[in-house]
Amino acid sequence: MTTDTGVHLFCCHDGKGDAAETLDTTTLGHKGAQLIRMRRLGLPVPPGFVLDAQVCARIAAEASLPEDVRASILAALEVLQEETGQGFGDGRQPLLVALRAGLPRPMPGLLPTVLNIGLSPEIIEQAVKHGQDAAFLWDCYRRFLRDFGVHAGGMAFEDFEHLLEDHKESLGLVDDTMLEAGHWQEIAQRHAAFIHEEAALEIPAEPLEQLFSMLVAMMRAWDSPSMRRARTVHQLPDGWRPAIVVQAMVFGNRNERSGAGVIISRDPLTGRKPPSGEWLGQAQGEDIVAGLRTPWPISEDERRLSGLDVPSLETALPQAHAALLETADVLERHFRRVQNIEFCIDDGQLWLLQTFDARLGTEAALQAAVDMVREGIKSRRQAICDIDPQRLEKLLHPVLERSGGASRLLARGLGASPGAASGEVVTDAEEAMRLAAAGRSVILVRPETTPEDIPAMHQVRGVLTARGGMTSHAAVIARGLGIPCVAGVGTMEIEAGAGRLRIGKAEVRANEWITIDGASGEVFRGRMPTRQPQLPESFHTLLQWADELRRIAVRANADTPRDAEAALAFGAEGIGLCRSEHMFFGSERLELLQELILAESDAQRQRVLAQLVQTHGEDFLQLFAVMAGKPVCVRLLDPPVHEFLPRSAVELEPLAGKLGTTVEHLQARVDSLREYNPMLGHRGVRLIITLPGLLQMQVRAMLQAMHTLALRRQAPSRLEIMVPFIMSASEMARMRQQILDIAQTLQNELGQLPPFHIGCMIELPSACLKADEIARHADFLSFGTNDLTQTVLGLSRDDSGRFLHAYLREGLLEDDPFVTLERQSVLPFIGMATERGRTGNEAVEIGACGEQAGEPRSIRLLAAAGLDYISCSPFRLPIARLAAAQATACENEDQAIDSDME
Amino acid sequence: MTTDTGVHLFCCHDGKGDAAETLDTTTLGHKGAQLIRMRRLGLPVPPGFVLDAQVCARIAAEASLPEDVRASILAALEVLQEETGQGFGDGRQPLLVALRAGLPRPMPGLLPTVLNIGLSPEIIEQAVKHGQDAAFLWDCYRRFLRDFGVHAGGMAFEDFEHLLEDHKESLGLVDDTMLEAGHWQEIAQRHAAFIHEEAALEIPAEPLEQLFSMLVAMMRAWDSPSMRRARTVHQLPDGWRPAIVVQAMVFGNRNERSGAGVIISRDPLTGRKPPSGEWLGQAQGEDIVAGLRTPWPISEDERRLSGLDVPSLETALPQAHAALLETADVLERHFRRVQNIEFCIDDGQLWLLQTFDARLGTEAALQAAVDMVREGIKSRRQAICDIDPQRLEKLLHPVLERSGGASRLLARGLGASPGAASGEVVTDAEEAMRLAAAGRSVILVRPETTPEDIPAMHQVRGVLTARGGMTSHAAVIARGLGIPCVAGVGTMEIEAGAGRLRIGKAEVRANEWITIDGASGEVFRGRMPTRQPQLPESFHTLLQWADELRRIAVRANADTPRDAEAALAFGAEGIGLCRSEHMFFGSERLELLQELILAESDAQRQRVLAQLVQTHGEDFLQLFAVMAGKPVCVRLLDPPVHEFLPRSAVELEPLAGKLGTTVEHLQARVDSLREYNPMLGHRGVRLIITLPGLLQMQVRAMLQAMHTLALRRQAPSRLEIMVPFIMSASEMARMRQQILDIAQTLQNELGQLPPFHIGCMIELPSACLKADEIARHADFLSFGTNDLTQTVLGLSRDDSGRFLHAYLREGLLEDDPFVTLERQSVLPFIGMATERGRTGNEAVEIGACGEQAGEPRSIRLLAAAGLDYISCSPFRLPIARLAAAQATACENEDQAIDSDME
Repeated sequence: MTTDTGVHLFCCHDGKGDAAETLDTTTLGHKGAQLIRMRRLGLPVPPGFVLDAQVCARIAAEASLPEDVRASILAALEVLQEETGQGFGDGRQPLLVALRAGLPRPMPGLLPTVLNIGLSPEIIEQAVKHGQDAAFLWDCYRRFLRDFGVHAGGMAFEDFEHLLEDHKESLGLVDDTMLEAGHWQEIAQRHAAFIHEEAALEIPAEPLEQLFSMLVAMMRAWDSPSMRRARTVHQLPDGWRPAIVVQAMVFGNRNERSGAGVIISRDPLTGRKPPSGEWLGQAQGEDIVAGLRTPWPISEDERRLSGLDVPSLETALPQAHAALLETADVLERHFRRVQNIEFCIDDGQLWLLQTFDARLGTEAALQAAVDMVREGIKSRRQAICDIDPQRLEKLLHPVLERSGGASRLLARGLGASPGAASGEVVTDAEEAMRLAAAGRSVILVRPETTPEDIPAMHQVRGVLTARGGMTSHAAVIARGLGIPCVAGVGTMEIEAGAGRLRIGKAEVRANEWITIDGASGEVFRGRMPTRQPQLPESFHTLLQWADELRRIAVRANADTPRDAEAALAFGAEGIGLCRSEHMFFGSERLELLQELILAESDAQRQRVLAQLVQTHGEDFLQLFAVMAGKPVCVRLLDPPVHEFLPRSAVELEPLAGKLGTTVEHLQARVDSLREYNPMLGHRGVRLIITLPGLLQMQVRAMLQAMHTLALRRQAPSRLEIMVPFIMSASEMARMRQQILDIAQTLQNELGQLPPFHIGCMIELPSACLKADEIARHADFLSFGTNDLTQTVLGLSRDDSGRFLHAYLREGLLEDDPFVTLERQSVLPFIGMATERGRTGNEAVEIGACGEQAGEPRSIRLLAAAGLDYISCSPFRLPIARLAAAQATACENEDQAIDSDME
Repeated sequence: MTTDTGVHLFCCHDGKGDAAETLDTTTLGHKGAQLIRMRRLGLPVPPGFVLDAQVCARIAAEASLPEDVRASILAALEVLQEETGQGFGDGRQPLLVALRAGLPRPMPGLLPTVLNIGLSPEIIEQAVKHGQDAAFLWDCYRRFLRDFGVHAGGMAFEDFEHLLEDHKESLGLVDDTMLEAGHWQEIAQRHAAFIHEEAALEIPAEPLEQLFSMLVAMMRAWDSPSMRRARTVHQLPDGWRPAIVVQAMVFGNRNERSGAGVIISRDPLTGRKPPSGEWLGQAQGEDIVAGLRTPWPISEDERRLSGLDVPSLETALPQAHAALLETADVLERHFRRVQNIEFCIDDGQLWLLQTFDARLGTEAALQAAVDMVREGIKSRRQAICDIDPQRLEKLLHPVLERSGGASRLLARGLGASPGAASGEVVTDAEEAMRLAAAGRSVILVRPETTPEDIPAMHQVRGVLTARGGMTSHAAVIARGLGIPCVAGVGTMEIEAGAGRLRIGKAEVRANEWITIDGASGEVFRGRMPTRQPQLPESFHTLLQWADELRRIAVRANADTPRDAEAALAFGAEGIGLCRSEHMFFGSERLELLQELILAESDAQRQRVLAQLVQTHGEDFLQLFAVMAGKPVCVRLLDPPVHEFLPRSAVELEPLAGKLGTTVEHLQARVDSLREYNPMLGHRGVRLIITLPGLLQMQVRAMLQAMHTLALRRQAPSRLEIMVPFIMSASEMARMRQQILDIAQTLQNELGQLPPFHIGCMIELPSACLKADEIARHADFLSFGTNDLTQTVLGLSRDDSGRFLHAYLREGLLEDDPFVTLERQSVLPFIGMATERGRTGNEAVEIGACGEQAGEPRSIRLLAAAGLDYISCSPFRLPIARLAAAQATACENEDQAIDSDME
């Protein structure tokens, strides 16, 4: 079926080939491969041949048809003539062909299609003499002329349509079917004249000339500036080249027993059977695609529902309709995905022109997947592998009820974290915390957020920023917290002092209500109702199947009982990261922590610690009770000291009073604790080693809570105490011993304590290198992928925004390494540490709990590296569960997943 | 010679053993091992035995003498009695013994010595009856009583001396030799009564009891609080335990043909022959050690020089003197180091009591080493291995002429960077730069320095800080720059606004002159003359030998022609790091750079770049000319952008004018360039990739300079262009291509350019991991050990001061990793990158240029890792050359070097 010049036939000689054979879409284009495949399935496909990507590249390079290609095409045309019984350029039974360019994946509407090649006034004249329909032929010819003008002459499609409309108007006619042969001939002549005038082009009289010149024109268009722009916009890989399908025409516009349309093998809105679609009688497919006429429903049910007074295919052409339904079923069963099928009916005969995987809404895609499993069309594994985990996200966040409220769109930014929320505009982080603590709904509005805004971000409903993109600090943190964020509203200016906003010409006062939609990026004035989407049954079914398949456990990052409840609802198997510092974000506790850090004497410190152990213990008690029986991994206090410290005189004054010192002295101490590179500074285990009493306070609070639950005969959670920022095995050995000593002392006071585990975070290259020695003192290791990325690449997340765009643009990084785990260097460090960790301690449990642990591609990488679990924000759990199953079940289906992406 | 109870005899039975045999000083103590060795060399050593560390540990544990030890001691005493012909406790010929505790290394004065054990009033009475000298025996006894009171009773040595002096005064006598037996007996009785009264202790009457109780008392003292403190102060390893030598007494106080003293086998001030020493007639060694009497010179030459009217040993006891000189020669030839020998002459007979390596001043040590090589006593290799490279430092910096000037000591801080300097007090870094640029001498005075002070530190004469220690920012940077620094003057307060200092009660006005001594840590008011030490011929000789031995090349970090000249003078083989950003520290050029970074348009940027390429090129021209023929490695602009930016409104105003914008706008831009973690921020190659035109400007400036030199037929240096902060191979490939493209364009303009190399710094864990791929695009790799330490350990140098002391104190880090290369993690990364780099490119040259590359232990590690060269500050070059030779020549001599350290 393939000549050695890259011309691939699909017609009589090919018969029913092996439909299961893998076809190379890179060479044949997706369209060409699908036509060959449908032909092999025995489905009615007009005969034709594919000029593959290599041949097309040669045509593009030479800007003409090489001699051998020309010969191959002629030979292929011979075969087409044989099957159709028609002749190319033959006036008795003229063969008409269509050219359709295709890429390795379906890109509807991106590449040109040229129909009806093979006519000329002379050929039409002859054909009419041989009894063929003149009106039909002249209509076909004027369509060819239009496409020729557009693709060879660079003219506007609309101009030709205007010509047609003007002519119909001058005739007082509306419907195309009412035009007669003479009218069509006249219109064709006007088209030809228009092309002469506007583009100074000769219309090739010879069909072969038409074919060859259109092939060259199509390839020239591929390298045109506008197509180059489009290629960039669609992010097409550099290596992609089009292949071109040359195919015998069939005619939906032939007569009243003809038509063209599209059918989707299930309802795209619900994902359920029966198929749904549109058609038009006496039309070619382009009439639907170009939106020139309003299409008609396919089934009578659909028609009734629509209330339209138009013929359904079911009633108009019942035989063709039945054949179409059967075909849709065959194709869906073959491809095991919902199919989007382009068809044509020529004088009652059904022909298929294309099929590809239908793009369904997320809910519909889930429903279809589950139904198809139940119908035995696909396996659970396939159903799981076919869903892009990212798509689940939009089901998990509130959406705007756009009907309600008298709101006005203020601006459009980037939808940087999904969900919708309303709240008062507050431009100061501390004010935001204060109001939120008082129960008010707050939208934090900042030029851009910084690490110092994190405590406030934990309390507000949503975040709006003037600068930054999808990977800005605000976006990353908001996504982790599951709150909506609109970023990069460039027209917004913040008058910090007054707390006012100026957005374009509008002004928004401090504490005025606004509503943001973090999916669309819209910002509205006023309060709009939102709705929490109902999670469909199919969502739960699919995730349950995913849970059965996956080998890597999925836990949540959760700091409060509320977080923990959300985590359990979304299927968390435990808490993989409870950031104990977040327990200090309430203002009262923050003050205690500030006192601890700034204490002037040991007595002061002891007093504060005694208070802290109490409140801290109560927090843990609630959290452990919620997570009954499941692991809870508590990270000891981690971030840089100065993040906890007071910043304004207002805060300093009461603190100075409590500590019996002056504001000036306190200010000096706070200043002296500021750091040049806080990420590499006085944090994690370093804080524990230098701040007396801190470790004891935290460990006692946790173990007392565990003990209390045991006394109450409640199932305690499986406590894991995690030491952050471990640099060496000696640190870890020291920490383990100190924690065990504290536990022993407590046990002497209280009696037997429930068992617990001790482990650490792996966030430093030195810890990766020494993972074997560290693991000897650890029951578990957990990768902090954010910090590890920062240290391995020497890249500060909060500062990388200044140059990361250049790195991504120039291909120096594949992705933002703080969104997707970096494969070249960070991943190997994780691999090294995992291997060494297990060497040092066979039983060590290994997880990951950074930002990237909730991102599907990163999850696949982490699972492949051999981790036991990942832990992510509760709102990422469904995504993570699905991605984790894919990591196990879809090893070789990268493409399948990508091709399903919207 | 050794009983299985850990008692090691050295006497008749041991004869002349194998003097070359290695003796375990950990078991025997240094003192014990040296006595055994001297005995084996056939030298006159009073017989005795060693209770080794294990036995002593048992005595300490049981707080009494175990039965088997007691038996072994009795047996050993038998042997002593046999050799001496005396009897322990025997009134006819009483054997007296001395106890001397020793540790694995000589620690003079740290541990107790008890002499003259074996007498009692009864024994003396008997002995006098048998014709022995009563005065001598009573003197010995009162000495024993004093030591007993001090070591068993915890009494004060001085109180006993006062008793003696009071008694002599009451008798009207001055000199001990004038006291008669009755006097001495009376003094002894007073001593005994004093011990009764003060310590309520019985004096053991039995010599064996005396011996046993003193042994137990000595071991108890080892674990006393004061000794524990002393052990901490001297940083004695935890595992060290004393061994005790029990040795027959010989008596320098016996008669006028007796004496005791110390001889050093070469003059300790010059390192030259002949030996030099001190003695006292009719005295025991303690009389010299305790400083009770002024000692006399040994040689007649020394006596004449001293002008003292006292007898030299040479004239007083010529035979003993001759024997002593011969002995000193034997010991020096045996140990191959200058020896410090303790001797005693008993009735004309020379006895040796101890020998150890003498501690000489640096110049003397060099002279002695060189002389001993020339005399054939030691090899060049040994001479090199015996010198601690750090000691060379004090020869390289100016020292104070303390005689001159009417200066007054203001304060004492830590001598944090050697050298002395005078200058005006300036407390503001920018003011310091301004004055220094105007040719004024400035001492920068700051609470502590920060990275923002670095430009100023390049210009001033010295630095004085109120806070921070030896590894503070100020100390590290000052040492790198070779300027003096006094750190941690806790009594100093800086009134920043007024520029005044308050040091204790003194006040120093702004711009008043002060003088600092970075070796002693002293701060003086006023200007004091300094002197550049004359480098002795031996210094050059030794370094020349070192250069012949070493395999690793030594280059300098130098940014200016002046630096380069200093580097050549100190033996640099090239420049391993020219930080091109330091070329911008002059205020005029800094402005240009600021304009470049903040340019509002491409036209502005181009104008600035054109100016910069000119000035930058002139800098390079001078530098390359100085370094003719030698490699010069220029690092492209590296540090964070904001370090270069204006900070005050005063600076912003003119810049805003030049750029045609407002101060407010400019301030906002400067603010937006500030970073949270600048070390991991927008720097190095990231700056090059995002700042258009920068790379071209720098590369053109370098290559034009090379071309100009070639035109002048001057030998150009071997240019190496180094890209900083490389993260991945794709960055390096991009940089190489861009540099080659720029060079090609320039070559098209100017004609043939001299060849040059392209390479990069390895400062990131990811770069270590990918060193093989990076090396494929690099001619050389150079480790930036500072940044690598920061990223591998997640440790910011500028912030680590807050917790590093705790890490060092608790043994969680061996050393400050920014002073000495960290071995556990950072070194393995260097090893990995070196190995991978050579795998990727066999010919790649590998060096290191961080702070640690000038530190001897780090140099040994880097050499062992297989590096081709190291590069350090010019003032560290001699140290580095010596350390590099040791890395090659002294593989197994770690101990030898340490034991030579002061």
